Amino acid sequence: MNRFWVTSKGFKYSVNVGRGAWRTFADFSQDRYSAIFILTEKPLWERWGKRFLRDSSLKKARALFIPSGENSKSMRMAEKVGADLLRQRADRRSLLVALGGGVVGDLGGFVASIYMRGVDYVQVPTTVLAQVDSAIGGKTAVNVRAMKNLLGTFYPPRLVLAEPEVLTSLDERSFRSGFFEVAKHAILSGPGLFQQLEGETSSLFPKRAGGLAETLAQAAKVKVDVVSRDEREAGLRRVLNLGHTFAHALEEASGYKRFLHGEAVGWGILIVLRLAELLGAIDPAESRRIARLLREIGPLPGLRDLPVRRILKLLPQDKKAVGGRIHWVIPERIGKVRISDQVPMRLVATAFREVQRGG
Amino acid sequence: MNRFWVTSKGFKYSVNVGRGAWRTFADFSQDRYSAIFILTEKPLWERWGKRFLRDSSLKKARALFIPSGENSKSMRMAEKVGADLLRQRADRRSLLVALGGGVVGDLGGFVASIYMRGVDYVQVPTTVLAQVDSAIGGKTAVNVRAMKNLLGTFYPPRLVLAEPEVLTSLDERSFRSGFFEVAKHAILSGPGLFQQLEGETSSLFPKRAGGLAETLAQAAKVKVDVVSRDEREAGLRRVLNLGHTFAHALEEASGYKRFLHGEAVGWGILIVLRLAELLGAIDPAESRRIARLLREIGPLPGLRDLPVRRILKLLPQDKKAVGGRIHWVIPERIGKVRISDQVPMRLVATAFREVQRGG
Repeated sequence: MNRFWVTSKGFKYSVNVGRGAWRTFADFSQDRYSAIFILTEKPLWERWGKRFLRDSSLKKARALFIPSGENSKSMRMAEKVGADLLRQRADRRSLLVALGGGVVGDLGGFVASIYMRGVDYVQVPTTVLAQVDSAIGGKTAVNVRAMKNLLGTFYPPRLVLAEPEVLTSLDERSFRSGFFEVAKHAILSGPGLFQQLEGETSSLFPKRAGGLAETLAQAAKVKVDVVSRDEREAGLRRVLNLGHTFAHALEEASGYKRFLHGEAVGWGILIVLRLAELLGAIDPAESRRIARLLREIGPLPGLRDLPVRRILKLLPQDKKAVGGRIHWVIPERIGKVRISDQVPMRLVATAFREVQRGG
Repeated sequence: MNRFWVTSKGFKYSVNVGRGAWRTFADFSQDRYSAIFILTEKPLWERWGKRFLRDSSLKKARALFIPSGENSKSMRMAEKVGADLLRQRADRRSLLVALGGGVVGDLGGFVASIYMRGVDYVQVPTTVLAQVDSAIGGKTAVNVRAMKNLLGTFYPPRLVLAEPEVLTSLDERSFRSGFFEVAKHAILSGPGLFQQLEGETSSLFPKRAGGLAETLAQAAKVKVDVVSRDEREAGLRRVLNLGHTFAHALEEASGYKRFLHGEAVGWGILIVLRLAELLGAIDPAESRRIARLLREIGPLPGLRDLPVRRILKLLPQDKKAVGGRIHWVIPERIGKVRISDQVPMRLVATAFREVQRGG
């Protein structure tokens, strides 16, 4: 079990990753809360609820359910959960535990940040993506129509508990999808984690999640380190958007139905890799090595039918864009990226078309 | 023109109150923003829009409208404004100006706090209540069904501009209603402001707003001082809830239709005054003096038909309640209140019944 500390604006919080993480909830002083609520999804709760309550020594917590799926990341659902909390007499000193994947975590964090102007919350991520990425750093969000994460807050949790065993009940596609984000962190981190992941691509099966615990912990640590140094994205945190500018456009262009988020990120990284080559920013051999790892993580749903003009049009709406410009995260080598807002759209189009032809 | 400074967590901001306040917007560096949007209501904009644009030297700002009335303080409206902002290509560096009363200010602040996880905003309050109270301090909120302000954030504005001339177009009832909040601040502040207000109760007419500028400025300063010392309500800020515990219950019990907010606060203060007498916390002569001022500010809609049991039941749902307890703000004399969570409900019921019988 690894315990990493995130230094946030007002306070520090601990990210506990690895076998036994849920049991560390017992160290967290629960007495200061008037009541504890667990926001989760029913199937997940049926499979893991008892175990979580036992491990965490949470006897009296009450569970609140939201439907599975991205549609729950909405203002309407945030309002509904708020009304549920009120009905159950949650007050300002109540604690909200978000037990689930990115949707539960993003929505739960958002509700925690606005319920009575803010209550404490704990992230208990149950997907690969949430464990290494979205549950760490305090970004909360809901979607507005096609615009993912348009509304949200920066609101750090008090604790993050990532238990790898919970990943064993994921289906294989979701599981592998999360490893595209692990790969992103490995690219940002450097040869150590990258090589470790290269050695494990043949064992990316949910039932073997326990054996991947160390890689997952190191991937989570990459996020911990970045957000500790830059909580509000103004600078450093932008590197975490590696692959995400295209990812959002691909997801939106396909109505959020074709790609899992990690898969879209996989494509996104492949496209900026090609872009980096066109810019002469990366050695082609290094680029091939990264691309190979991504291809080994898993198959990606096709993107040949997506019209390039539509994709490009969707890019500048990305909220990381400032005054219409796009800040590209360009990989230079394993362990190094640079940010550039001076990339000609002509090259962007070429990179996309070339990857599209190959994919 | 008075310029007061609020010391907020991350930064200081200035509250400019008095004739010419709108013109001081020119001192505020507008260049750093990619675009400026004004959230307001149509009738208000038709009456004051041109003047505001001229005074503030804001040439290119775009106005966004919300319907007048408390119903606009909803998650649905927050989402709609978010979608409007996106359509008009607002990004993280955009500025939102909330020009209006409490509804526009609370909703505008809330949207600013969650749009792309937070953009800067400026409060331009146009009602008495907003100028002396709600626009200052960074509390933002929307309602959920009957529960006022259930969801919201602490998110300070970058600037507050309170121009008294805009009050001249208010109807008399709204205008007077705001003075119950002014009275609340006078009670908290002490004999100076209190006496000043006593001398002005015969001139509480919208068209004479200019002459009341100094009183309004001093009332705003009370709020500025309190929130500067305690931004997050944990302690000191609670005094601002004087009269509000009952106010919310009265508003809710009457479906938010009978009382303007200030009127409900007027009743709320009268009831806690009586409660303070029953507790032996205040000298009866002092209590009468305060009650007299409140009665002189304006007539209050009746509350004789409101069932005491229903009102009392609505009290503990107040979000200032912690673990079910109510923190009462009890006036001890002009310039001094105390907070108590040890008030027997029997006395609370008696105080309400007595005031009800009189009102």
